[in-house]
Amino acid sequence: MVNDLQVLLQKMTLDEKISQLLQLAGHFFDGTHGEITGPMASLGITEETVRDTGSVLGVTGAQDVITLQRAHLERNRLGIPLLFMADIIHGYRTIFPIPLAMGCSWDLQLAERSAEVAAKEAAVSGVHVTFAPMVDLVRDPRWGRVMESTGEDTYLNSEFAKAFVRGFQGTDDLQDPLRVAACVKHFAAYGAAEAGRDYNTVDMSERQLREFYLPAYRAALEEGCEMVMTSFNTIDGIPASGNRWLMRKLLREEWGFNGVVISDWGAVKEMIPHGVAADEAEAARKAIIAGLDIEMMTSCYPKHLKGLVESGEISEALIDEAVLRILTLKQKLGLFENPYRGADVELERAVVYSAEHRQAARDAAAASCVLLKNEGVLPLRKDSRIALIGPFGRSGDLLGAWCWRGVHDDAVQLYDGMAAKLPAGLLTAAEGCGVEAPATEAQLAEALEAARTADVIVLALGESASMSGEACSRADIRLPQAQLDLLAKLKPLGKPIAVVLFNGRPLDLHGVIDEADAVLEAWFPGSEGGAALADLLFGDVSPTGRLTMSFPYAVGQVPVYYNAYNTGRPNVPTAPDHYVSKYLDIPNEPLLPFGFGLSYTSFAYSEAALSGGTMTPDQPLTVSVRVTNNGSAAGVETVQLYVRDMAGDVVRPVKELKAFRKAALEPGESEVVRFTLSEEQLRYYHADLTHASDAGSFRVYIGPNSRDVIELSFELAK
Amino acid sequence: MVNDLQVLLQKMTLDEKISQLLQLAGHFFDGTHGEITGPMASLGITEETVRDTGSVLGVTGAQDVITLQRAHLERNRLGIPLLFMADIIHGYRTIFPIPLAMGCSWDLQLAERSAEVAAKEAAVSGVHVTFAPMVDLVRDPRWGRVMESTGEDTYLNSEFAKAFVRGFQGTDDLQDPLRVAACVKHFAAYGAAEAGRDYNTVDMSERQLREFYLPAYRAALEEGCEMVMTSFNTIDGIPASGNRWLMRKLLREEWGFNGVVISDWGAVKEMIPHGVAADEAEAARKAIIAGLDIEMMTSCYPKHLKGLVESGEISEALIDEAVLRILTLKQKLGLFENPYRGADVELERAVVYSAEHRQAARDAAAASCVLLKNEGVLPLRKDSRIALIGPFGRSGDLLGAWCWRGVHDDAVQLYDGMAAKLPAGLLTAAEGCGVEAPATEAQLAEALEAARTADVIVLALGESASMSGEACSRADIRLPQAQLDLLAKLKPLGKPIAVVLFNGRPLDLHGVIDEADAVLEAWFPGSEGGAALADLLFGDVSPTGRLTMSFPYAVGQVPVYYNAYNTGRPNVPTAPDHYVSKYLDIPNEPLLPFGFGLSYTSFAYSEAALSGGTMTPDQPLTVSVRVTNNGSAAGVETVQLYVRDMAGDVVRPVKELKAFRKAALEPGESEVVRFTLSEEQLRYYHADLTHASDAGSFRVYIGPNSRDVIELSFELAK
Repeated sequence: MVNDLQVLLQKMTLDEKISQLLQLAGHFFDGTHGEITGPMASLGITEETVRDTGSVLGVTGAQDVITLQRAHLERNRLGIPLLFMADIIHGYRTIFPIPLAMGCSWDLQLAERSAEVAAKEAAVSGVHVTFAPMVDLVRDPRWGRVMESTGEDTYLNSEFAKAFVRGFQGTDDLQDPLRVAACVKHFAAYGAAEAGRDYNTVDMSERQLREFYLPAYRAALEEGCEMVMTSFNTIDGIPASGNRWLMRKLLREEWGFNGVVISDWGAVKEMIPHGVAADEAEAARKAIIAGLDIEMMTSCYPKHLKGLVESGEISEALIDEAVLRILTLKQKLGLFENPYRGADVELERAVVYSAEHRQAARDAAAASCVLLKNEGVLPLRKDSRIALIGPFGRSGDLLGAWCWRGVHDDAVQLYDGMAAKLPAGLLTAAEGCGVEAPATEAQLAEALEAARTADVIVLALGESASMSGEACSRADIRLPQAQLDLLAKLKPLGKPIAVVLFNGRPLDLHGVIDEADAVLEAWFPGSEGGAALADLLFGDVSPTGRLTMSFPYAVGQVPVYYNAYNTGRPNVPTAPDHYVSKYLDIPNEPLLPFGFGLSYTSFAYSEAALSGGTMTPDQPLTVSVRVTNNGSAAGVETVQLYVRDMAGDVVRPVKELKAFRKAALEPGESEVVRFTLSEEQLRYYHADLTHASDAGSFRVYIGPNSRDVIELSFELAK
Repeated sequence: MVNDLQVLLQKMTLDEKISQLLQLAGHFFDGTHGEITGPMASLGITEETVRDTGSVLGVTGAQDVITLQRAHLERNRLGIPLLFMADIIHGYRTIFPIPLAMGCSWDLQLAERSAEVAAKEAAVSGVHVTFAPMVDLVRDPRWGRVMESTGEDTYLNSEFAKAFVRGFQGTDDLQDPLRVAACVKHFAAYGAAEAGRDYNTVDMSERQLREFYLPAYRAALEEGCEMVMTSFNTIDGIPASGNRWLMRKLLREEWGFNGVVISDWGAVKEMIPHGVAADEAEAARKAIIAGLDIEMMTSCYPKHLKGLVESGEISEALIDEAVLRILTLKQKLGLFENPYRGADVELERAVVYSAEHRQAARDAAAASCVLLKNEGVLPLRKDSRIALIGPFGRSGDLLGAWCWRGVHDDAVQLYDGMAAKLPAGLLTAAEGCGVEAPATEAQLAEALEAARTADVIVLALGESASMSGEACSRADIRLPQAQLDLLAKLKPLGKPIAVVLFNGRPLDLHGVIDEADAVLEAWFPGSEGGAALADLLFGDVSPTGRLTMSFPYAVGQVPVYYNAYNTGRPNVPTAPDHYVSKYLDIPNEPLLPFGFGLSYTSFAYSEAALSGGTMTPDQPLTVSVRVTNNGSAAGVETVQLYVRDMAGDVVRPVKELKAFRKAALEPGESEVVRFTLSEEQLRYYHADLTHASDAGSFRVYIGPNSRDVIELSFELAK
């Protein structure tokens, strides 16, 4: 196979090769006829370059793709098919919960299934590659793209990374035309933007990078992920797209990745404002030397690579290598045999937004919501009079950012989901206020009237989808004041209030969680959001979600995350005096800890035990605990296992999630949940960056979240 | 000389050597008779250890020191004198403004003078070493110890580091008994505590460390600073006090430092909670191997070093080396000839808190205050009726943290400073509210009454000194609500309001700066604070201070600092679209920029020019600008010069302060201010950590602060 591609490569002119390294958006082509229509002048490229372009961004729809591919093949001298790539992040047309919500499911099969559904809808619509999964670890809720991550934990992010890759790609090496190639992003550490401001500088030690931020990208690649997208940020002072250490040394040499690396949108040219390239030629030179194969949406490569080769500043071998990687991906996808892979107008009609897919989205939404508080309000009775108040009660803004093929008007609204479960006349809706616009007098009067006549208030509050996502960072992470005011106005009525929250980031929930009787975190639940929420609110489905990011006590506490280091002066209850690591005005602890989530029942933990006091490299330990459903409803508990190395070669987190297991229990039922813990799970990067474990004392913590745990101890002997 | 010490060392038993490495606080000794009284049991050490201790912390007063030294010498077999060390941070008894305020003076001679005064008072009181200067760079105003730093700029911090060292030590190699040895701290990067929480984890790239955080420590050492104190935090995962890379490789090998390194209070034993030592023996082993000479206040060394030597785990040579460094310092201080160096009961009476010293403190305080806003209110007329309202009007809480020998009751209060300049009856005072306690009805009535009968309100607001300093981080950096409420209640009276702010950190000044007609940032101005403030408020002295830290727009913007990187998507006015680095809810810019400060006059900049368009390594450029006092009062402008490297090997800050000059101008007067800019000033750490400059384009910015600048360009040719 490689030989065929080598032969093809030898036939290609330098111009043709360089064009393979460019990716253009669909607006460069006429969707109907596949003609080249794009604004070439603005990029300074020629029709020839577009004719020979290697890949296209954001064109979907089976017919459009087929037409464009056909026209392209007629134009292209060597008949090299286009690769069609698109941002299929949490669903194509059937929108699943945002990734942060999917993370809260702690359900890897569900995540895999969501990606499989997305892949299928995308594939029949002509897409070959999705720019997903996004596996950036995030500790700062100000950052808008936190909605696109599965959270703050390295282990969990890595597991989700693998699940999404399996879902997108399948496990048969891309042979299934109903799957798409995955492209893990954003390499690397994009989620650590300083001050939570999108695109901002990232700075951390290599140790921090390797220990916390890199594992999820690597996990995706070990699962077979075909592509990597660079991030917008700098790594050790150099933008990722021009970072030779990152792409050549780490990714290709150390990790052995041979696939295609693509820049994020415009990121090659952005080396100029970053200040590491004086002009586009320098940006092109730095990117190709660093190992970047495809330039997305700018034209530094097509305009300058040829000159750089001709002047001897770079070797043509660098270009050949990149082209070969792109051709190899096309070959793996079978595009040389069938350039229309997957695209199928009839199947598209049958598959996209099918009832089956919508059911999958509904299941995922229900599993992703997190019950944060419940003082006897939920589940709602189906015979009670309910006032559904708030700007999200009758809103289709349920999809979250990154859902460009999703249709907001089709999303099941909360009102409709609830109404479908109630006899007529029991549900009254009132908007109350805008998302940010304060209540008008009329809105307030209507809301108060609805509330007065109801047995219970369901208050649908949140951020609009456009308040999170790319370039949507917020310095204030509370709900907009208008909504806090609305809640404060309803509170004196003395009616039970259940808040349903729609948002794309962890929030400072003061003014909400302390005022409401129940709070259900719905995130952006996707196309079937209202239906899934109704399932939960009325108890037809039991809430099982658990937070994968800490909810800060206040924005002034950020970053706050569970797997922090202890410091030399921890603020423990036994701390001797004033001189401990603390704030004067707020606790060190977040408002809600990582792993937290309630159920409609309760669980008791007992009989926590280790199979022995000493672990050796050959002899793992078994950790067990009895979990009992001691409430009155069936429920699913997510039992979490954390570890702490008490004296390391370098400082170690106070807790690290090592495993979790779900236990579905009927009332009164109990189960002994068991984990195997081995020496391999205790390894980390030592001072010299070797990956090893320490002999000595360890703690094991087991419980329903990262805060409320039972502690056990063992020794590792080596 | 070294031979003498080698001989002495050879006479010492291992126990005696190890005792030299311990530092105990004064409560281990009876101040009157010099007897050993300390709680040895709690440290697990013996009377023998205390008898042979090398140094003492926090004992001052000529008589006490003499007594204790005499008793010690009688006890000590080899007659090795004690070193007396103490925290003399911003004054001994005469308290100068807090270091953050001193930084705002942009006056290095003044800083040097303040340290000289502190040294003199301390030296005659028996102190040999001060634990200063603190030169930690800070970008996070939540951190309580920000008050102890000179700010966010590497260059300025380095210049102040040198000035303080010159002031403490003098320039004659410690021969002057009225000087003390300086101990630069906290090595290293203590100011970068995560989330602004004191003692918290520090993580950054080595590049960031070298470029921004290390230079000020190094500057202090190059100025001859005798000692280094380690920081509480980790560096690359290892606590500083056990960090071999930091102390052996960087500090000693690379920088060639041969002096004494001391731990911060208890920091050796804190390796246990940090989680890099299982017990005190391991902590001792790691610290001595890493190169830490003196253990402060814990007893890992005296309890375990001997055993570690005897078991062969460490070499006795490690201990000899540390002891020799301590003996060398004692020798440099002349303690073997005169163990009572400096301590002089009579001189102490004459020198400490002398009128001359107090005048120096008054000058420093006036130069450190920063006028943040002034809409025609200041200077105050001496014939106007003034209501001085607020919890800081008649408060002695003017000294700030770290002033243990300062006396709050002696500090000149704002009321007294103002009253001294006014005819009787024009000044009325009312407390208005507590620092944090809301106004009582009586307080409010009194304040409103005072305000109603006044021509102008001077509102003295702030944080108490205990709201900043060590272990005093705040998540909310606004003034306490009680004081914001007080201002809001006074505002409707329509009287001009001049706010004087007392605080130890940059604050979010919303609710203050937008409501008041004038704002004068007084920080904690020290013993003569009220007098200096009156000088400024009435225009007897012109305000000249300039901020050395950005004042954030909101805590949700932290960290915000002027010398940030540009990112690939800067939010410039010409930015094409939505996808730029920004917040949705607040600007990227701080409320008040680095370098900002007003005067009672105004200055115009014109004729900005470079001596040429091209710099070479041999040919510096001259940057010049005409500064004209175009107002009606005399004033001093601080002209600031910034540089930007447009395309570096790694990303470069959008602005870097390279020089500043003061111009004292009468009304109508003008002066051409000139700077020489050379290639050496353009060097920085390249990707491979070599220190070099880049050929190519540079910008020069010149102006009154980091925001309002004139831009020029040049090329560097190499």
